[in-house]
Amino acid sequence: MLLETKLPIRYILTRIKPDIIRVLLISIVFQGLKTYFGANLPLIPLQLPAILGSSISLLLAFKISQSYDRWWEARKLWGSLVNDSRTLVLQTKSFVKRDFLLPGPESPLHAMAHRQIAWCYCLGDSLRGQNPVPELQKHLPQRELRYLESHTNKSLALLDLHSEQIKELYEQEAINAFQQVQLDSTIVRLCDAMGGAERIKNTVFPVTYRLLVHCFIYLFLLTLSLGLVETIGLWEIPVLLAVASTFFLLERTARYLQDPFNNKPTDTPVTAIARTVEINLKQLLQASEIPAPLVAESFYLL
Amino acid sequence: MLLETKLPIRYILTRIKPDIIRVLLISIVFQGLKTYFGANLPLIPLQLPAILGSSISLLLAFKISQSYDRWWEARKLWGSLVNDSRTLVLQTKSFVKRDFLLPGPESPLHAMAHRQIAWCYCLGDSLRGQNPVPELQKHLPQRELRYLESHTNKSLALLDLHSEQIKELYEQEAINAFQQVQLDSTIVRLCDAMGGAERIKNTVFPVTYRLLVHCFIYLFLLTLSLGLVETIGLWEIPVLLAVASTFFLLERTARYLQDPFNNKPTDTPVTAIARTVEINLKQLLQASEIPAPLVAESFYLL
Amino acid sequence: MLLETKLPIRYILTRIKPDIIRVLLISIVFQGLKTYFGANLPLIPLQLPAILGSSISLLLAFKISQSYDRWWEARKLWGSLVNDSRTLVLQTKSFVKRDFLLPGPESPLHAMAHRQIAWCYCLGDSLRGQNPVPELQKHLPQRELRYLESHTNKSLALLDLHSEQIKELYEQEAINAFQQVQLDSTIVRLCDAMGGAERIKNTVFPVTYRLLVHCFIYLFLLTLSLGLVETIGLWEIPVLLAVASTFFLLERTARYLQDPFNNKPTDTPVTAIARTVEINLKQLLQASEIPAPLVAESFYLL
Amino acid sequence: MLLETKLPIRYILTRIKPDIIRVLLISIVFQGLKTYFGANLPLIPLQLPAILGSSISLLLAFKISQSYDRWWEARKLWGSLVNDSRTLVLQTKSFVKRDFLLPGPESPLHAMAHRQIAWCYCLGDSLRGQNPVPELQKHLPQRELRYLESHTNKSLALLDLHSEQIKELYEQEAINAFQQVQLDSTIVRLCDAMGGAERIKNTVFPVTYRLLVHCFIYLFLLTLSLGLVETIGLWEIPVLLAVASTFFLLERTARYLQDPFNNKPTDTPVTAIARTVEINLKQLLQASEIPAPLVAESFYLL
Amino acid sequence: MLLETKLPIRYILTRIKPDIIRVLLISIVFQGLKTYFGANLPLIPLQLPAILGSSISLLLAFKISQSYDRWWEARKLWGSLVNDSRTLVLQTKSFVKRDFLLPGPESPLHAMAHRQIAWCYCLGDSLRGQNPVPELQKHLPQRELRYLESHTNKSLALLDLHSEQIKELYEQEAINAFQQVQLDSTIVRLCDAMGGAERIKNTVFPVTYRLLVHCFIYLFLLTLSLGLVETIGLWEIPVLLAVASTFFLLERTARYLQDPFNNKPTDTPVTAIARTVEINLKQLLQASEIPAPLVAESFYLL
Repeated sequence: MLLETKLPIRYILTRIKPDIIRVLLISIVFQGLKTYFGANLPLIPLQLPAILGSSISLLLAFKISQSYDRWWEARKLWGSLVNDSRTLVLQTKSFVKRDFLLPGPESPLHAMAHRQIAWCYCLGDSLRGQNPVPELQKHLPQRELRYLESHTNKSLALLDLHSEQIKELYEQEAINAFQQVQLDSTIVRLCDAMGGAERIKNTVFPVTYRLLVHCFIYLFLLTLSLGLVETIGLWEIPVLLAVASTFFLLERTARYLQDPFNNKPTDTPVTAIARTVEINLKQLLQASEIPAPLVAESFYLL
Repeated sequence: MLLETKLPIRYILTRIKPDIIRVLLISIVFQGLKTYFGANLPLIPLQLPAILGSSISLLLAFKISQSYDRWWEARKLWGSLVNDSRTLVLQTKSFVKRDFLLPGPESPLHAMAHRQIAWCYCLGDSLRGQNPVPELQKHLPQRELRYLESHTNKSLALLDLHSEQIKELYEQEAINAFQQVQLDSTIVRLCDAMGGAERIKNTVFPVTYRLLVHCFIYLFLLTLSLGLVETIGLWEIPVLLAVASTFFLLERTARYLQDPFNNKPTDTPVTAIARTVEINLKQLLQASEIPAPLVAESFYLL
Repeated sequence: MLLETKLPIRYILTRIKPDIIRVLLISIVFQGLKTYFGANLPLIPLQLPAILGSSISLLLAFKISQSYDRWWEARKLWGSLVNDSRTLVLQTKSFVKRDFLLPGPESPLHAMAHRQIAWCYCLGDSLRGQNPVPELQKHLPQRELRYLESHTNKSLALLDLHSEQIKELYEQEAINAFQQVQLDSTIVRLCDAMGGAERIKNTVFPVTYRLLVHCFIYLFLLTLSLGLVETIGLWEIPVLLAVASTFFLLERTARYLQDPFNNKPTDTPVTAIARTVEINLKQLLQASEIPAPLVAESFYLL
Repeated sequence: MLLETKLPIRYILTRIKPDIIRVLLISIVFQGLKTYFGANLPLIPLQLPAILGSSISLLLAFKISQSYDRWWEARKLWGSLVNDSRTLVLQTKSFVKRDFLLPGPESPLHAMAHRQIAWCYCLGDSLRGQNPVPELQKHLPQRELRYLESHTNKSLALLDLHSEQIKELYEQEAINAFQQVQLDSTIVRLCDAMGGAERIKNTVFPVTYRLLVHCFIYLFLLTLSLGLVETIGLWEIPVLLAVASTFFLLERTARYLQDPFNNKPTDTPVTAIARTVEINLKQLLQASEIPAPLVAESFYLL
Repeated sequence: MLLETKLPIRYILTRIKPDIIRVLLISIVFQGLKTYFGANLPLIPLQLPAILGSSISLLLAFKISQSYDRWWEARKLWGSLVNDSRTLVLQTKSFVKRDFLLPGPESPLHAMAHRQIAWCYCLGDSLRGQNPVPELQKHLPQRELRYLESHTNKSLALLDLHSEQIKELYEQEAINAFQQVQLDSTIVRLCDAMGGAERIKNTVFPVTYRLLVHCFIYLFLLTLSLGLVETIGLWEIPVLLAVASTFFLLERTARYLQDPFNNKPTDTPVTAIARTVEINLKQLLQASEIPAPLVAESFYLL
């Protein structure tokens, strides 16, 4: 997530450099063509690039609005994941009989909460294509780590362990039948949030639209360049450059928002959110060592 | 689902060839008309095609936005189907008493999970109008295959078999009354996702809009051609061609997204999703043979 | 629901004939005025109709998008009604004790399923303002038909009969308390879908917008006609006609989609959907006579 | 709710009279200024009002779309309120043991249903800022009227009485524990719908947008008037008037839709809806005197 | 929340002063440049700023629509929080056995209701970055205040206390198992609303869009200024100023709506809402001292 304050120019430049260079080359070529073949080129009326310009705007409006929706949906899913992590621990505290709620790492409450913390980190790492094992080792006992080894979808396997523990609690009569079902409903919601994030990660935004936006932008540049043939001379180059770069930057911004789990500065800040969950859950357990919230080192928070 | 990388030019050309040819013919006819009847033709001011151009853009913006919504809803429904498939197996593992959870194909867990895998493949095939029986034979016992024979909606019949098994588990006291109802709620959600996908498959997007878009585009071409009558001569043909093809390609892209279960490259990748479910569920069963994820052979994933 | 294939020209013409005639008259009057009072008429710059044109486009974009939403919501409600009809029968099969599930029309399963089929047809007919009694007589026993006589909202009365039967099943201990509540939840959802469809039927889309669209279109025609005063002569009539008809057709298409229960070709195909439910439920009952799906006789499906 | 048929011109004129007068004055002043200072005034190119015109259109598009959403949400909330009123009575009939369902005003079913009817009227009146007591007196017993006296939010107090009655039914063992919870869920949904309607009533739509729309319209008029300085003379006044009134009427239509509980013709028809609920519930009770549906006396239904 | 009536000009001026000054400086600089280098400057055709103007409009339309959605979502979350606060107290009254519902501050009902009031104030203060302790001290007993000391997220800790009390009520058999689960569901919804508000507070709207809007506006000013080079002379300065300020004010309005928990006049009125909850809950408790609703002291309500 980009932060409000300090967006370095260099970051923006790096993102649009290839586009700028391409447009620069194109406008130089156009300039050359017009110098040598000026007489044979048509005098395109400026209404034509105006029509294309409004088509580009509408297409970009569609793209930025849909990518924003994807990005916001990703954020909402991670928000509901925070809520249900808190709910899971509140419910475990409230449902499990006091005899079973001894302090210390043997207690089912301690196990559930730490497994839930591990789950948040694990899901974030998996979505970003990183290895979740190092984080898991911090929060899980050996026995559970061994169980996870054979699973490719480790977040799902952690939910399986949650379910297994809820089953044991019911068998030991630490919770009653309604409470088991209510806890299970929380697991269902966690499973939904996980699946939703995976869906956003794995679904490619229809690529044809990017192609069409680019196609429209180049057509626009071409007709604009021909339309300006007699009026502004060499000034055309900076004009084309400025307008085209803004369009390209807009398209690229939308494209980055579309994929919020790519280990980029525009990502949903999954690690920071997992840290928030860790702090919340440990305070609910009244743990002694609470980690500090993740702070941004630069202009973004991951 | 089209993949990010390698969209072959040939694929795009095939999609718009008929439109290109039609526009080419039209602009040649216009050119001819203007040569012979030039004096009698009105000099349409270019504001008129500009107005039409912005109407086309808005109509197309509506179309691409609604078709994207249909496509995304289809993807969401298949996402919720993944979530509830996982939930069904997690719940069965967690609810059914251990005495009933023997390993091997006789166990109710094994039957539920394999029936659920079959259900995903079957629903995908039915939506695409393909015969689901070959896939069903891989995952279901003879007895259930025979039961399915008399049903036209095989996915619904599979949910019926799920319900029947849940009833038996309750009768054998392998699950209690709350657990039966909680499992039933999962079946309800599966039934909803199935019905949602069928709804998208069976509802024709209002056809009048396509007609109107085409009507606007031809009016636009006509007025633009008349408007350019004195300015750019033969250059008109490539100009009309480029602008019109982009509009047509946009309309066609939207139309393909509208129907995501048509066995086309732009489909929701239902087979790949069903495979993911198969992998997840088999790992939850700790099965020995796990299939590999479906890989794209070309520029798309089905 | 209009079908993809064969939309007859005559159908479209009938819809816009009044608009076309009005525009034709208007443009002839304008033409006459300009011939006689040409000197006194202002030369409106073409930017003015251009501004009005873009306002019309935006207003129409709003209208087509909101009417699409109404239409799609109506379709979704009928989709959820299909899902919950299936769910109701699956749940009855799964919940009711086997002793009570004898075959034949006396069985509560048979009664529930046939009442549910009757409910779908009845709701569709009521929404379209048709008499639902003939359909009800096909599916309901005499006793229930008599009960319905005194009710104006027959669909609600059928839900009342469902509830009454669920109560009896609970009193006879054919279902337990949880199952009663779970079945009741399905009735709640059916009641919601019914209320939603009635809401769409009974809520008039804000009429002022139609008025404003028409007002804008006539202003647009007026200024355009005055703007073209010197340029294109009699050619103005076909130009105005073509542009105005497209706008009017767009407005009318939106208006038809707004009201999807009007017994028109653009309706939600409630009869076809009710037939689908009938087929599904009868196959779940393993009935011997299954009706065929409704086929379109013409270019639409009701 | 405005009805489809008979929208009197006078109603529309009253709404935009102040705007029309203001625009008329402004254009006369402009005309005067141009006559006396014509030489010193700049010749604004018409592209400038065109740009402003498209900004106004987009801003108005935003406003009409968001106010429509508010209006539709209000209608949906009142729709869900109808559904849950029906559900409440269906559930009471279905859940309460037959021994407790004696006919007559002493029966809990009778009390619940009449209190629910009172609740609908009461909520409608409160939202419109009218005194709900007269309606309450028609439907409630003295004892309950006295309890309501001390409450400012009478609709909430009625839900409190519902809850109290459900508690008594449970204490008398007329309903079991699951049924109590299921009835309570219906009360929760009623409480949600009530809160939602209050939210729409009490939340002022961001006022800055109205200010900005007006600001844009006046800028547009100013630049348009200056831009037309040489072309159309006195014809400018009707042109400005027509365009500006349409924009103002659009803004005002949106503003009226925004606040659907203001006792105006564009209101959500809460009284008519409450009457529908009354008819439905009384028919479910098989009451002898059923009131007639509310009919529109004029061009709207309240 | 800004109120409908009295928006002081000074408030608006303060918001756009920096933008106005910047635009003023820029247009003076442009004016100077044009005076000295006029001959060398290109004569930009006015179509170019027109294209940029429509891009700005679309980008701003996106921004105002998404910020409105954030603002409305925040309001909805606080609405659902009102509903669930009322529900929590209604449920406690309805579920807890009469023996446990003694009047006075020792009663669990009194404790729940006052803790819920405290929770609303606390959440509002935390979201606005203010210290919630003073408000908490008004509503909570010493014992609970001490428990809160060690928690950084005090709202979550209050939900923990709610859960603990529900657990105690269940252990004392004041509520049964179903009622515990139903109360827990209300806590789950409160936890969701809290998490949702925190999500809106902590998620920065993609900053790149603001950058791009500004970039487009400056490009627009530049090209417009160059385009007007020969026509309107010094009149250019007020024209640029008026158009640019309106765009900037629009952008700033959207930005303020985006962040509805910033202790600004455009905030969601969380304190006023918490006061409403306090009044409602105290009336449900039939408390003797009911505070008055919060009244706006100025043109806004916090």
